[in-house]
Amino acid sequence: MNKKNKKVNASILIIGNEILSGRTQDKNVSFISNWLNSKCGISVQEVRIIPDHQKTIAKNILELSKKFNYVFTTGGIGPTHDDITAISISKAFKVKYEFHKEAYFILEKYYGKKKFNDGRKKMAKMPKGANLIHNPSSAAPGFIIKNVFSLPGVPSILNSMIENCKPYLVKGSKVYSQTINFFTVESNISKKLGLIQKKYKQYVDIGSYPFFRLGKIGVSIVSRSTSKKKLSYVKRELIKMAKEKKLKTLKT
Amino acid sequence: MNKKNKKVNASILIIGNEILSGRTQDKNVSFISNWLNSKCGISVQEVRIIPDHQKTIAKNILELSKKFNYVFTTGGIGPTHDDITAISISKAFKVKYEFHKEAYFILEKYYGKKKFNDGRKKMAKMPKGANLIHNPSSAAPGFIIKNVFSLPGVPSILNSMIENCKPYLVKGSKVYSQTINFFTVESNISKKLGLIQKKYKQYVDIGSYPFFRLGKIGVSIVSRSTSKKKLSYVKRELIKMAKEKKLKTLKT
Repeated sequence: MNKKNKKVNASILIIGNEILSGRTQDKNVSFISNWLNSKCGISVQEVRIIPDHQKTIAKNILELSKKFNYVFTTGGIGPTHDDITAISISKAFKVKYEFHKEAYFILEKYYGKKKFNDGRKKMAKMPKGANLIHNPSSAAPGFIIKNVFSLPGVPSILNSMIENCKPYLVKGSKVYSQTINFFTVESNISKKLGLIQKKYKQYVDIGSYPFFRLGKIGVSIVSRSTSKKKLSYVKRELIKMAKEKKLKTLKT
Repeated sequence: MNKKNKKVNASILIIGNEILSGRTQDKNVSFISNWLNSKCGISVQEVRIIPDHQKTIAKNILELSKKFNYVFTTGGIGPTHDDITAISISKAFKVKYEFHKEAYFILEKYYGKKKFNDGRKKMAKMPKGANLIHNPSSAAPGFIIKNVFSLPGVPSILNSMIENCKPYLVKGSKVYSQTINFFTVESNISKKLGLIQKKYKQYVDIGSYPFFRLGKIGVSIVSRSTSKKKLSYVKRELIKMAKEKKLKTLKT
């Protein structure tokens, strides 16, 4: 990658026994990663999935918040006993775990005073000093403290909230992606592909992914770069390679 | 959880830019985790998703192999330049990265001598001393070194190979799971649920997960334990709670 470009990175911390046990298929990683890349020029460099366990959450928050520009957590901010993300982050950063006035007000208004029970009140407790991530679908807000953004685990709710993270993010250079699909096997093009990657390694990342489509075996070559121009050079070389090897391409 | 039970744990290391970037939706975590739990009594305690980067892979392999009984890696064992799992694990464990005789023989036989090119030969290179995980779908084997099991990233191929890991795994106590679905909101049951969890915290893990089904909002209560008896006690308490609160349950 070109060093002139501004690189901003992030990590995602998925908190939840249901994902670890395989009961629930995670959908938030690809959504958050795609959004960060396409809307903010931020690339996700590491994802971790961990259990609902206070010390484990706190330890991972500290590690990831030091290592990356931003950390996005999902899950564990609801009203039940296994929702311990907010208290764990408070412990990690050694700040009080207390009612956030605005969050309390939002939730009280949403549920009505009579129905604002202890479980619902719990959703207004956050690390002291947190900013809110407003929630247009179900009121209960996420929060931001230092470089950590805490979002809910339910994908539809998370998706509705993500745009509200934007004002707090410093943008990086957008990474463009181009995919070319060939009907061939990887080992038929691996040598030439390695040479092309070597030639452009400063500017372009090239990945090779087998696929099965229309009853045939193929390879998707995905090139990623902050420079559209460099991507077009790689495309030219890939098409040249395809002609030499008489490969059919799949139009997508 | 009951301390008399034998706990065996594992972690999963997903290696691949395509998963991190959000281009590809991971399906291996839930498959491996379900398989390990149901067939081997092994519970996955951490998952990491990392890029195709040699030092990052090596560092994560060392960390996870110390921290957990087993590590399962997926991805990066194909023929192209971005397939660097085997060389990275060799570096991590400071062993030679060399041709595995049996793997070489299997691949040469599969492709035929004339078509056994450099890309294909690369798939026979592994950390010295590795054992093979045989591949009934596409020949190229995975490998085991120390407590690390390396599998391919393509889900259909991985799925066909997983049973071949079994002879190398020490089994733990099976964790049973029971799910009861109520038509209610979490905050309506969070207090009582917290009390039930407290009472059985030594034996049973109780998780609460909202759902939207048949146009209604509900909560799945998932209880997990190595003791079927303790699970039945929790079930009794949950049903009692539902009666008191006049909740409808969803038959599944």
